[in-house]
Amino acid sequence: MAHIKLLNEELPGIVGLLNFRPETGKALTDLAEVLLRGPSTLTSGEREIIAASVSYWNQCHFCHTSHAAAAAAHLGTGLSLIDDIKAGLPQTPVSDKLRALLHIAHQVQRSGKEVTEEDVADARILGATDTEIHDTVLIAAAFCMFNRYVDGLGTWAPVPNEAYAEMGKRMAHVGYGKS
Amino acid sequence: MAHIKLLNEELPGIVGLLNFRPETGKALTDLAEVLLRGPSTLTSGEREIIAASVSYWNQCHFCHTSHAAAAAAHLGTGLSLIDDIKAGLPQTPVSDKLRALLHIAHQVQRSGKEVTEEDVADARILGATDTEIHDTVLIAAAFCMFNRYVDGLGTWAPVPNEAYAEMGKRMAHVGYGKS
Repeated sequence: MAHIKLLNEELPGIVGLLNFRPETGKALTDLAEVLLRGPSTLTSGEREIIAASVSYWNQCHFCHTSHAAAAAAHLGTGLSLIDDIKAGLPQTPVSDKLRALLHIAHQVQRSGKEVTEEDVADARILGATDTEIHDTVLIAAAFCMFNRYVDGLGTWAPVPNEAYAEMGKRMAHVGYGKS
Repeated sequence: MAHIKLLNEELPGIVGLLNFRPETGKALTDLAEVLLRGPSTLTSGEREIIAASVSYWNQCHFCHTSHAAAAAAHLGTGLSLIDDIKAGLPQTPVSDKLRALLHIAHQVQRSGKEVTEEDVADARILGATDTEIHDTVLIAAAFCMFNRYVDGLGTWAPVPNEAYAEMGKRMAHVGYGKS
């Protein structure tokens, strides 16, 4: 049971929290929409992989599994991507540029101060633009927020990967904050 | 110098980043506005103290000093509040309820999973409502994002407390995302 009395205790993870406080809920879903589905030279699949990876490093089961399922829906990989993200993507074809951006995201997850000039230079050599580096840092930072929000209020989450298949498709193809 | 080429390198901290990417900038300032100045039974001064404390724990000088200056502007304490927040507020009259909420915020800063049922029960005994507990967790989580965004992109920040006096007044009395 969550740490606070939600209006509908059946809603998992962040969904029950957005419903509990719609004023902050709108600002949060607007942010998720622009970060993950707004105009960008990073594909939504790549951005969802960054979001899901950060959530895994923060051990947030709901955010990791739902955003990995969204990445799978964008990329057409099937739900095996969820566990492959946990393992560092050994089975998924991923560009060297995205691997360098994932390294920056991992540094941000530890602390903003961990990102070095060398980390940024390495990503740039592999083709990352300044806007892509910006967006990667902000997505990683934002999931350090979403993960703490979901776990800090003790929300519940379905366990099996398969429970996230429909949610992932809706996140990918309908979007955030839309019914 | 920041890790990416900003449009105006004189703009400090998050200001240069909001200007670099207005699409994400709007979502971020909308979130700050509702969290810190929207309707709530926590005063804006209390909410800015939570924001500044989390930023100090994350060692983000720009966010700590600017939000502490905003708290000072709300509460009329003068800029000595900036250093008092670093010391755990020994000189500032703060309710026991706010001290319990600051403890929850500190747990969130470490990890969402650190918040215990006992932490929440303690705050409730001292008068915190479920919405106040919710807002505290979300403000603390949001500053784990803002701090990582500002430091992860290597932005510059003025050093002395006095450099933040005008900025704090504008944040308190004009608001976020408004000129």
